[in-house]
Amino acid sequence: MSAEQPERPEAVVVALIDALGSAVSTDAAALDALRTDKSGHRTTASPLALVTATTVEQVQQTLRIASAHGTPVVTRGAGTGLAGGAIGGRGEIVLSTLAMNQILEINAADELAVVQPGIINAELNAQLAPHGLWFTPDPASRAISTVGGNIATNAGGLLCAKYGVTRDSVLGLAVVLADGRLIRLGHRSVKGVTGLDLTALLVGSEGLLGVIVEATVRLRRVVTGPTPTIGAYFDSVRAAAEASAAVTAAGIRPAVMELLDGACLDAIGELLGLELSGAAYLLVQTDGPGAEAEAAALLELLQASGGRAEMTTEPSEAERLLEIRRAMHPAMERLGTTLIEDVSVPRSALPAMFDAIARIERRHGIRIPTIAHAGDGNLHPNFVYDAGADDEVPAHIWAAADEMFQAAIALGGTLTGEHGIGVLKRRWLRDELGDAQFELQRQIKSVFDPAGILNPGKVF
Amino acid sequence: MSAEQPERPEAVVVALIDALGSAVSTDAAALDALRTDKSGHRTTASPLALVTATTVEQVQQTLRIASAHGTPVVTRGAGTGLAGGAIGGRGEIVLSTLAMNQILEINAADELAVVQPGIINAELNAQLAPHGLWFTPDPASRAISTVGGNIATNAGGLLCAKYGVTRDSVLGLAVVLADGRLIRLGHRSVKGVTGLDLTALLVGSEGLLGVIVEATVRLRRVVTGPTPTIGAYFDSVRAAAEASAAVTAAGIRPAVMELLDGACLDAIGELLGLELSGAAYLLVQTDGPGAEAEAAALLELLQASGGRAEMTTEPSEAERLLEIRRAMHPAMERLGTTLIEDVSVPRSALPAMFDAIARIERRHGIRIPTIAHAGDGNLHPNFVYDAGADDEVPAHIWAAADEMFQAAIALGGTLTGEHGIGVLKRRWLRDELGDAQFELQRQIKSVFDPAGILNPGKVF
Repeated sequence: MSAEQPERPEAVVVALIDALGSAVSTDAAALDALRTDKSGHRTTASPLALVTATTVEQVQQTLRIASAHGTPVVTRGAGTGLAGGAIGGRGEIVLSTLAMNQILEINAADELAVVQPGIINAELNAQLAPHGLWFTPDPASRAISTVGGNIATNAGGLLCAKYGVTRDSVLGLAVVLADGRLIRLGHRSVKGVTGLDLTALLVGSEGLLGVIVEATVRLRRVVTGPTPTIGAYFDSVRAAAEASAAVTAAGIRPAVMELLDGACLDAIGELLGLELSGAAYLLVQTDGPGAEAEAAALLELLQASGGRAEMTTEPSEAERLLEIRRAMHPAMERLGTTLIEDVSVPRSALPAMFDAIARIERRHGIRIPTIAHAGDGNLHPNFVYDAGADDEVPAHIWAAADEMFQAAIALGGTLTGEHGIGVLKRRWLRDELGDAQFELQRQIKSVFDPAGILNPGKVF
Repeated sequence: MSAEQPERPEAVVVALIDALGSAVSTDAAALDALRTDKSGHRTTASPLALVTATTVEQVQQTLRIASAHGTPVVTRGAGTGLAGGAIGGRGEIVLSTLAMNQILEINAADELAVVQPGIINAELNAQLAPHGLWFTPDPASRAISTVGGNIATNAGGLLCAKYGVTRDSVLGLAVVLADGRLIRLGHRSVKGVTGLDLTALLVGSEGLLGVIVEATVRLRRVVTGPTPTIGAYFDSVRAAAEASAAVTAAGIRPAVMELLDGACLDAIGELLGLELSGAAYLLVQTDGPGAEAEAAALLELLQASGGRAEMTTEPSEAERLLEIRRAMHPAMERLGTTLIEDVSVPRSALPAMFDAIARIERRHGIRIPTIAHAGDGNLHPNFVYDAGADDEVPAHIWAAADEMFQAAIALGGTLTGEHGIGVLKRRWLRDELGDAQFELQRQIKSVFDPAGILNPGKVF
């Protein structure tokens, strides 16, 4: 118990400390840090306590105590979310699974691993590499985000068109329910259709249904051989979007296909001190046994689509091309505060979605530098603004974002491709789901968590 | 209204005929045919009526009327199920979606199709082929089973280790709920994480949650180039199982890897008039840009594992090898009545699972010819028996199957890899799920279908 605890600690905190001792923190600075995530959104007050669990039993005890006191529990990994899905506020317990970070099994024969939720994605892959194995989900946050968080948000990334989203890599889960019971979902086999697929339901459930305490994940073999890399500049973002749609339409399946618009290039050029010569940039990488033939076809197609394209299989040259993509986030940070959005559309609708973003920029007089995982139609428009004292996203930015969400949904897409709903997109959830599905989802939440103590106020 | 209807038709049937006219049949022969599926299991009496819907509105009307009367509804496609999941019995309405068989859209640019549920899997693929597109789920029944049925059972097949199960190919669904409301789940984009993943929950739900009336399915490009085919005979089924596990462990990902035991070979040899010279047979096929290199590595590995292996890229030769696999089902039918089982285990456990089956054969004095999708660890043990007058599976066969299910679960697998629970495996569901998960699943069922009119008595 630290000196910063409230003078009359809540009964639930006393009970947690009695049961879990030093796993419980009420340190003011520690609690304050839990109020936000990488979205920048902050709750209005610190949570009651932080429980840093190291065992499944501690997770169960925390939920039993929270249930007994009717106290909300926010499950949190590394806090790298972009939708405020794991931020803690007034009257809540934050349950961190970050210290449950062990790899319990690596099984090359069955191409699977059993891991605790707190393992960092990149750390898992570092430990898999000597076995020639690979956990494919690759969110841009992979160096700092946990596998548990990847699963709770059904994380995407750059490679999804070819290698799938996180859901495709989860075979089974151990989950602690709101009342503290432990259940095991799924199996270790590739196939299995026993009853309803609750494993898939838990993936992307953003802490609403239970606490993931163990995951059996499917692995692939590390892809070997050359990875030809192509960078292509275009005279307009529409031309680049059309070229990327043409790649998919031609049946080519690159591992990476990233599209940066002119505003991104300007900011990145300034950051890196480079003259980036175009209104849009397409970065494409192929891999696997067909990599070179695919790259040759790609190069021809991009040039025919008006791209000034160069290809390399030289690692240092490829690195130079990839550096432009990687500089995106730091370049945005120099422009001001950014709301990183996350709409996803069918790939053929990429040009139309870029048109819609340009219209929204003009109508609202704002800049929306946009990067897209063009291989799967997932765009990250960066709404840049000057933050006020309260750190909140200004109303006019949300008004512009609202138009963008409606445009994405109208094109057959979704308001979030990989970041989740969290708190930031709750108000649009019903627009996309419709009333009937919205109610079904809330009722399913109630089946798992009848008292509503798991991450209340998030998603719904 | 046919002459065979009961003299005093039930009020619900009158209401259906009033609303739907000739879409409703009460023909005795038609109703009798609905009592069974490819499992051979039969209900004790014919259903009340068959509604053959041709529109979404007819499906909605049927469910509104059924809800108003509290009458159970069994949704049925082509009736090719192997677990009795779509068989109709006393007091039930069977709702056929077989006539809703249109392809609404083929979209090469977005690699998707929008289809009605009654389209036959092979027919969809025949229509996709000119576009260079492919719906990958490939149950052995694909020439006769519907896409709606494939989705309702999360069908597997021969190619799942490389190309995934049906769930991986479903982007979105339109579903009519028990009360007749229509909801749309999922989206047309590759990514999407808005709320809980009800699309994934509906896949494999065996008619318990709603009626699938439209599906947006993900497509792949047709794989071109040579498909080297290898057939290898082994001196024991264990040696063949170990060789197949070694293929996975070596990081080779064949498209097809089928294992037939000696009893299968004997029956097939007799059917085809061939001398099949081994105790087990492994049939392997590779495809895609790495096909030839993979096949060369495979051939070496199988020979090193004791296999008498031959490889061909000659289509007629490959056909000769594949014919042995395809003769499996007709060969079994000559032996007697068969209960085709469907356990799935981690691939490294294949040898242990074959050992367990051999023990069960000895202990029960029965023959269990077994074929396995060895690439993904899914076994189909064929329990052969003499059917009595009642067509029912004899108790001693179920006792042997029970031991087999327990063995599969103990090895980290599942009692059904791709056929589903239906009526035939209800009694083992709780063994695999555990009490807590079983109850959660039942409650989720109740959220969708509070009155319990959708396929009651199946799965749970």
